[in-house]
Amino acid sequence: MFENAGRTEISSLGEFGLITHLSKNFTIQNNTQLGIGDDAAVIEPTQGLHTLVSTDLLVEGVHFDLSYFPMKHLGYKAVIANLSDIYAMNGKPKQITVSLALSSRFSLEAVEELYAGIQLACERYQVDLIGGDTSTSKQGLMISITAIGEANPTEITYRSGAKVNDLLVVTGDLGGAYCGYQLLEREKRVYLDNPSVQPDLAGFDYIIERQLKPEARKDIYELLKTLQIKPSAMIDISDGLASECFHLGKASNVGFNLYEEKIPIDPTTYNFARELDLDPTLCALSGGEDYELLLTISQNDYKKLENHPDFTIIGYASEAAEGMHLITKSGNKHALKAQGWTAF
Amino acid sequence: MFENAGRTEISSLGEFGLITHLSKNFTIQNNTQLGIGDDAAVIEPTQGLHTLVSTDLLVEGVHFDLSYFPMKHLGYKAVIANLSDIYAMNGKPKQITVSLALSSRFSLEAVEELYAGIQLACERYQVDLIGGDTSTSKQGLMISITAIGEANPTEITYRSGAKVNDLLVVTGDLGGAYCGYQLLEREKRVYLDNPSVQPDLAGFDYIIERQLKPEARKDIYELLKTLQIKPSAMIDISDGLASECFHLGKASNVGFNLYEEKIPIDPTTYNFARELDLDPTLCALSGGEDYELLLTISQNDYKKLENHPDFTIIGYASEAAEGMHLITKSGNKHALKAQGWTAF
Repeated sequence: MFENAGRTEISSLGEFGLITHLSKNFTIQNNTQLGIGDDAAVIEPTQGLHTLVSTDLLVEGVHFDLSYFPMKHLGYKAVIANLSDIYAMNGKPKQITVSLALSSRFSLEAVEELYAGIQLACERYQVDLIGGDTSTSKQGLMISITAIGEANPTEITYRSGAKVNDLLVVTGDLGGAYCGYQLLEREKRVYLDNPSVQPDLAGFDYIIERQLKPEARKDIYELLKTLQIKPSAMIDISDGLASECFHLGKASNVGFNLYEEKIPIDPTTYNFARELDLDPTLCALSGGEDYELLLTISQNDYKKLENHPDFTIIGYASEAAEGMHLITKSGNKHALKAQGWTAF
Repeated sequence: MFENAGRTEISSLGEFGLITHLSKNFTIQNNTQLGIGDDAAVIEPTQGLHTLVSTDLLVEGVHFDLSYFPMKHLGYKAVIANLSDIYAMNGKPKQITVSLALSSRFSLEAVEELYAGIQLACERYQVDLIGGDTSTSKQGLMISITAIGEANPTEITYRSGAKVNDLLVVTGDLGGAYCGYQLLEREKRVYLDNPSVQPDLAGFDYIIERQLKPEARKDIYELLKTLQIKPSAMIDISDGLASECFHLGKASNVGFNLYEEKIPIDPTTYNFARELDLDPTLCALSGGEDYELLLTISQNDYKKLENHPDFTIIGYASEAAEGMHLITKSGNKHALKAQGWTAF
C-alpha cells in the first residue's frame, strides 16, 4: 500500500542521517540520561529497583504480512509486544531500542510510518526510545526491539512462583487477535482472486483491532498495586493460553485444571470463529498475540478481584503429576496440548 | 563450509527448545539475578553506577559473507562489536541479549557453532547472556545484539567532551580489519574462478585475525583507570578513523588536525595494502571494523601516556570552524572526508 506514496530512497540519507531523521521527534523522559547519539545510551537506575530486560524479533513473512498490515500499526504492535513482557514481570517499561533491517523496496516514507507507530506507543506508554541500528537487508523487513524496565525486587513476578491450589486468572478476553488474523487472511485471498472486490470487514472492528493494534496491560500493572495483589506467577499471552499454561506449569512445577466455560471470549471473536467453522475455545488456547496477562494468585486474594471486570478466574493449579487439563463445557476432562504459535 | 557437517533441522527442536538448547552451557555471573527463561531478565544495578545500553544489527550479505566467515568467529565478532561500544563509554559490559533470524539453510550444528563463538566472547569478557529471540527468516542470517554495561557516572566518557587543543589519541593500529577483508574477498574470487586453487593466506595471519577475530579493548578500559586518565571524549572505531573523527568533532563542536605519519599501521597491513595498490592511510581512515578506541585527552594528561605502546597521539582538536584536516607525510594539508563504511 505504501509503495504508491511519495517515495524517497533511504540511501539518500545514509545510515546515520536516517537514525537522526527518524528519532528527531522523540522526547526523552524517565530515568534516561542520554538517548540516541553516542556509542551507548545512559540510564540512571532508580535506587532500590531492579532492571528488567526483554527482547523480541519480528520478521516479515513470518510474523507479519505487509499486504494488510499498515506500517504504522506494525511499529506500534512491535513495541507493545515488548512492553507486554515487562508488565508480565510486574514491572514498568522505561526504555526501548529498535533495530531495523530493510530491503531496498522500503521508502523513507514507509519507515517514517513505522516510526510514527513506534512513537505513538512510546508516548502512550511513557517509554523512551534510546537507541537502535539500521541496515539494508537482502529481502524484507526485520524489527528487533529490546525493552528495559524497572521493578521493586519484592514485587517482581516470575513464572516460577505458582503453588498448588493457586487460582489461575486471565485478563481481558482471548482469541480475538487470532480471529482478526484469520479474517485479514481471508480478505487477502478474496482480494488476490478478484482485486475489484472490496474487503468485507463490517462488524469485525474488535477482532481487527486486536490483531492490528493490540495494547499491553499497563492498566493491570497499576490495578494490581491498587488491589494490593502480588500474583504468585505471571506471564503474558503471546503464544496462546495453552502454551503459556505449560510455561507457568513447568517453571512452577505444578499442573493446571482449566474450565472451558470460564475462558473469556468476546462475542465478536466467538461469532467469527463459528462463521469460519473454528472452535472458539481452540482460538483462545492456541491463537496467541492477545497480549493479555495470565497470572496465578493465592486463594487468600480471591476476594480482592472477585467479580472485577478485568479479571476472570479460569482454573486452578494442581500437583505437577496431575498434568494440564481442560474441563470442557460438557464436563469431560481432556489433557491439554500446547499448540502455540511457533516461528519454526 | 558447515553445510557438509552432520545436519539436524532447527525445526526439530522448536523455538523454545532451541533457545534452551543453545543457552544451556552459559553460566550467569555479574549482577544478573535471572537470565534466560522468563518474560524478561532481571538485573540488580550496582548502587551508584549508571546503566549503559548499546545495540547492533548484523545482516548476512551486508555485514558478513559466510563463504569465508566461520560461524564461530561470526558469533564472537558480533559480541565484540557490541562490547566495544560499552568500552567506548568508559564502561564495563555486563550482559548481552542475542536475537537471531535464520533461514532453513542453517542446521542446528551451524547455530551451535555460532553460539560457541558467542559463549567464548562471554567467557573472555565476563559477560552474561541474559536473553534473546529466534525466528526463521525468508533469506539469510541476521544477528541483533544488545549489550548492557555499567559505569560510574563521573567516569562515563561521551563523544561530546573534546576541547580545543585536546590531544587526539588512538589505541592499537588501524586498517588491518579492512585489509583482512580485502584479502579474504580476493581469495574468494580466486576460489570461485578455480576451486582447485588453495587460498594464499601465508604471512597474513595478522590482518585475517583483525577481520575474523577482532577483540574489544577491555584492557584499555582498565589501563585508563591505572593511568588515572579520564578521556575528554571517546568513540570506538567501527566505521573508520575519518568517520569517527567527524562524529567526535560534531558532538564536541571542534575540528581536528591529524598527522598522516602518526597514524599507527601494522607492517602486515601496510605491505598488503601496497600489494593491492591501496593507500595504507586510506585503509586506516575509511576501513573500519578495527574496534580500536579513539579518544581525546587534555594536554595535562600527555605525560601519563607518553610513549605508552598501546596509545598513539595522532593529532589535536582545533576550533570547529577550522574543520577536519589531514596533514600528509609531505606536509600538505587536505580537508578530511568521512568515507566510512555504510550499511546503505
